[in-house]
Amino acid sequence: MPGIEIIERRRVFGGDVAFVRHDSAAVAGAMTFSVFVPDGEGPFPVLYWLSGLTCTASNFTEKAGAYRQASRRGLIVVAPDTSPRGASLPDDPAVDLGQGAGFYVDATQAPWKAAFQMETYITHDLIAVVEENFPADPGRRGISGHSMGGHGALTLGLNNAHLYRSVSAFAPIACAMRSPWGIKALTAYLGADHAAWERHSAATLIAEGTVKAFDDILVDQGRADPYIDSHLMPGLLEHAAAASGQKLSLRYHDGFDHSYYFVQSFIDDHIDFHAERLAAKGGLAHAAA
Amino acid sequence: MPGIEIIERRRVFGGDVAFVRHDSAAVAGAMTFSVFVPDGEGPFPVLYWLSGLTCTASNFTEKAGAYRQASRRGLIVVAPDTSPRGASLPDDPAVDLGQGAGFYVDATQAPWKAAFQMETYITHDLIAVVEENFPADPGRRGISGHSMGGHGALTLGLNNAHLYRSVSAFAPIACAMRSPWGIKALTAYLGADHAAWERHSAATLIAEGTVKAFDDILVDQGRADPYIDSHLMPGLLEHAAAASGQKLSLRYHDGFDHSYYFVQSFIDDHIDFHAERLAAKGGLAHAAA
Repeated sequence: MPGIEIIERRRVFGGDVAFVRHDSAAVAGAMTFSVFVPDGEGPFPVLYWLSGLTCTASNFTEKAGAYRQASRRGLIVVAPDTSPRGASLPDDPAVDLGQGAGFYVDATQAPWKAAFQMETYITHDLIAVVEENFPADPGRRGISGHSMGGHGALTLGLNNAHLYRSVSAFAPIACAMRSPWGIKALTAYLGADHAAWERHSAATLIAEGTVKAFDDILVDQGRADPYIDSHLMPGLLEHAAAASGQKLSLRYHDGFDHSYYFVQSFIDDHIDFHAERLAAKGGLAHAAA
Repeated sequence: MPGIEIIERRRVFGGDVAFVRHDSAAVAGAMTFSVFVPDGEGPFPVLYWLSGLTCTASNFTEKAGAYRQASRRGLIVVAPDTSPRGASLPDDPAVDLGQGAGFYVDATQAPWKAAFQMETYITHDLIAVVEENFPADPGRRGISGHSMGGHGALTLGLNNAHLYRSVSAFAPIACAMRSPWGIKALTAYLGADHAAWERHSAATLIAEGTVKAFDDILVDQGRADPYIDSHLMPGLLEHAAAASGQKLSLRYHDGFDHSYYFVQSFIDDHIDFHAERLAAKGGLAHAAA
């Protein structure tokens, strides 16, 4: 495990939030994440937060207002960047491809393949660096996120139920295979063969119902979100859950849009949702079943 | 009253937050502020928030996490910009003078005099546009702020006790006459004659004790604030309050710095402090005494 660099550390509520830079083998370069650690001895359960298009580690950290409730519930909260970044890495002028738009997949196509390995980064390298350097309990991980990061939380959670005990999302891309954002990104990162896309569609994974590792999945969605029908399609999650019997708590909220004003308004509920499911020590819940 | 332009409006917690542009006679140009309005009929009490150096209306609005408690307590919260702005206006390359650094005074010196009339803007034009366009109760106003804005909240509050019923501050510049930031700004805006500076020193106003309109003044200060001894000098507030008998609740917090992570950690207490003092309808408290 290479060392970490603490870029800055600040006191907030009953804990400390730090921005951390570290080297990741998966992306063959440096990555940045924020980590909130509550006061006390630990080990603490960890909530991983995946952000949306254009976000860095800062957006959630500065705007979500998550640390009041996280410090009350004794939860570490980790918010990674949304892609590798750097002048030497490939990029695209559009906001929905390249740097800031990793989509939480391992790219198989040029020019992205060398560095854009965000699935492995999140599910392996990030977990390793957090559990090596902070008082994190390896048996108690949850995952959540917003928009592209809601897609990431659902797909990485469902594909890796051995790693995460709780899953939730804000305004997720329900089916990356049908969203204009997802179609563009999956084509670029994974190629035109749709067979490689299936495991990156949250709705498809829920409909298959082969996992059902989670007693419930909490999803919040604003009804005034400008992307709801064209890019997010939350109804696909409802249909998928009904088909497979996966319990889904999908809540619609009148007036709320796609911004962090929406996220901050309901983040306490998600902190509580994960804290309840991560309260018991001793390995993953479904592994004990 | 000229019209207002709603730049954007978003749902957050139990209310709406809008960014508003309007023309101000005081600054002879356009100004921007954010305003959170809780659900309901009103009229609601209003908390005015004055921000610090470099801030626009966005910093507090996005990072302070104030609207959860404001919606619970039924408080309108208004956060104006820290100066007039524009390519045609004077500026200074330093962060502590010119645009983003109005210091809440009415400039008497060239080149600032024409537009940098922030005391009149905050105490007259801003109040007028808010009370004209939103369900604000004119009898119930509080004022708070951070750093340069903490200085502004204390000095404008103490100089205008007929306008504000409650005053608080985060990490305020206790005495602009002795702070390097204040000395530079007051010299530029008001000239070298220190007689014109006196009414812009919070500590001086408290020590004079001629007002005592406020039953208490709440001030929070982080002990890890890098500016505490060199630029803020909170001890001067304590000495001044002891000299005049003004009650001051100055709370020091270990580990906290000068950032909005500090502000968000204690904003609920300030919302409550103002809400309690603004709860009763019917004019200013001290006016009834």
